[in-house]
Amino acid sequence: MINELVKNIKAKDAPIVVGLDPMLSYIPEFIVDEAFAAYGKNLAGAAEAIWQYNKGIIDATYDLIPAVKPQVAMYEQFGIEGMKAFRRTCNYAKSKGLAIIGDIKRGDIGSTSEAYAIGHVGKVTIGDHSFSPFVEDFITVNPYLGSDGVKPFIKVCKEEKKGMFILVKTSNPSSGEFQDQLVNGTPLYEIVAKKVAEWGEDHMGDDYSYVGAVVGATYPEMGAALRKIMPKNFILVPGYGAQGGTGKDLAPFFNEDGLGAIVNSSRGIICAYKKAPYSEKFGPENYADASRQAVLDMKEDLKNAFVK
Amino acid sequence: MINELVKNIKAKDAPIVVGLDPMLSYIPEFIVDEAFAAYGKNLAGAAEAIWQYNKGIIDATYDLIPAVKPQVAMYEQFGIEGMKAFRRTCNYAKSKGLAIIGDIKRGDIGSTSEAYAIGHVGKVTIGDHSFSPFVEDFITVNPYLGSDGVKPFIKVCKEEKKGMFILVKTSNPSSGEFQDQLVNGTPLYEIVAKKVAEWGEDHMGDDYSYVGAVVGATYPEMGAALRKIMPKNFILVPGYGAQGGTGKDLAPFFNEDGLGAIVNSSRGIICAYKKAPYSEKFGPENYADASRQAVLDMKEDLKNAFVK
Repeated sequence: MINELVKNIKAKDAPIVVGLDPMLSYIPEFIVDEAFAAYGKNLAGAAEAIWQYNKGIIDATYDLIPAVKPQVAMYEQFGIEGMKAFRRTCNYAKSKGLAIIGDIKRGDIGSTSEAYAIGHVGKVTIGDHSFSPFVEDFITVNPYLGSDGVKPFIKVCKEEKKGMFILVKTSNPSSGEFQDQLVNGTPLYEIVAKKVAEWGEDHMGDDYSYVGAVVGATYPEMGAALRKIMPKNFILVPGYGAQGGTGKDLAPFFNEDGLGAIVNSSRGIICAYKKAPYSEKFGPENYADASRQAVLDMKEDLKNAFVK
Repeated sequence: MINELVKNIKAKDAPIVVGLDPMLSYIPEFIVDEAFAAYGKNLAGAAEAIWQYNKGIIDATYDLIPAVKPQVAMYEQFGIEGMKAFRRTCNYAKSKGLAIIGDIKRGDIGSTSEAYAIGHVGKVTIGDHSFSPFVEDFITVNPYLGSDGVKPFIKVCKEEKKGMFILVKTSNPSSGEFQDQLVNGTPLYEIVAKKVAEWGEDHMGDDYSYVGAVVGATYPEMGAALRKIMPKNFILVPGYGAQGGTGKDLAPFFNEDGLGAIVNSSRGIICAYKKAPYSEKFGPENYADASRQAVLDMKEDLKNAFVK
């Protein structure tokens, strides 16, 4: 999938992933009302609203972007019904040619890590048949448990030609509490990055590894150092837009080939209709058009990352 | 819930939690066959087998133990149907008076962490009603993202009087890759432990905090140091039995009051019928009785933790 993701990014000329992280409060009232009318004011109604909202955004943006990144927590909070909406969203985005990055941040050890990988990017064997419980192409993985935790994910990804992004330096203000701790002068996130580079060698695509990293847009100077430590690992960059990162901050995350990073925006795209300048032009009924315009503007802004 | 967990541990005289981490290969054939006959050789059939297997173990052990710890990955690998079996297992164990520790190892930031907490130990509000998507009493949490990641879990736990165990030092061989890195002479896991102690002050029960820690039985000397750093935080101890820890290794995890830790065994209990000495006495049809005997033996072995 990393080769396809790279191909997708080149074809769309947009190293952009749209974060499908729906909250009920983001969804235009007309969608919520219709969903409640059909399924009731309950978990099923909420899940239907999320799915319809996502579908609108996917329909309005799929020709512009290479990938979407649904945040599973936003679905898991609606229980079984939410997980159905997660699966449905992934399936639909896939049918539109998009790569699916499941933002699941799972991490455990041995057969438990393998079970997560099987569930999200693999196949589970039952009798003589195998089934794909969820259908992501990439997942995000937490490295705190070390190689025992990460390698089972890599094993399944190799079998399935799927990929992953391992948390290295996250975009949040307190990410430094543990990640920035200095070990003989080297911050922990660099130690993790070195491991990511090493793990990545075990599952290479054509130019980049199937094993990538997550590095927040909010830390561009660290991005520069990490880009060098992990030259062959794609970097998934959260924190653009709502969390404060801008196009100019993103230059350090890319390689000379203009590749090597994919930048996520969630609220900035999916809630565009609620915020200036979009709220003036687009009402809730045109929320999907507002998302499309926000993607176009993000694409333009990202060009600043490549201005020397 | 931490007060109730302590009460439960005292009443059962057993600081034991049974890990409900079912793999299809663990489940006696007669259960799998019946489930497949009823639902087909598919995800629903597999989920039914898991549920029936769990029910047997809960029925045979609930009077001996204070809590169960279902590992969500083992359910998630069977997709939506697996998650239904997870919920059903939690609900049933709860109806038997057991505390539920959801081993979910989630970790994210802000509203995303909050969404996980709402989904697993909280309530989601839809219109004028609120729903409990999943029904755990405690969850396990990954600390890699720092306070921004953990505090939203604590917020929801305070509202719901629920609790959590934060990964500090995990039981696996490679846990040291990142967790043991020395920061000015102090291992990272101790830095995390200090934070757990600090976070825990914000959500105290009678004698112990609602915020606990995970420390592997396989590292007893570290357990001793961590016990001192976190005197008011309950320690969930994995790695007993199948992973190599024994009763004698567990002394350092407990406080003078004989409390402060709860020891998990998964395969050692739920697969007892497959292993000596139980396999000689119990066949697959008596797998639940074998689990009961294994709990009784574990209880006996744990007494060694308290022999001075």
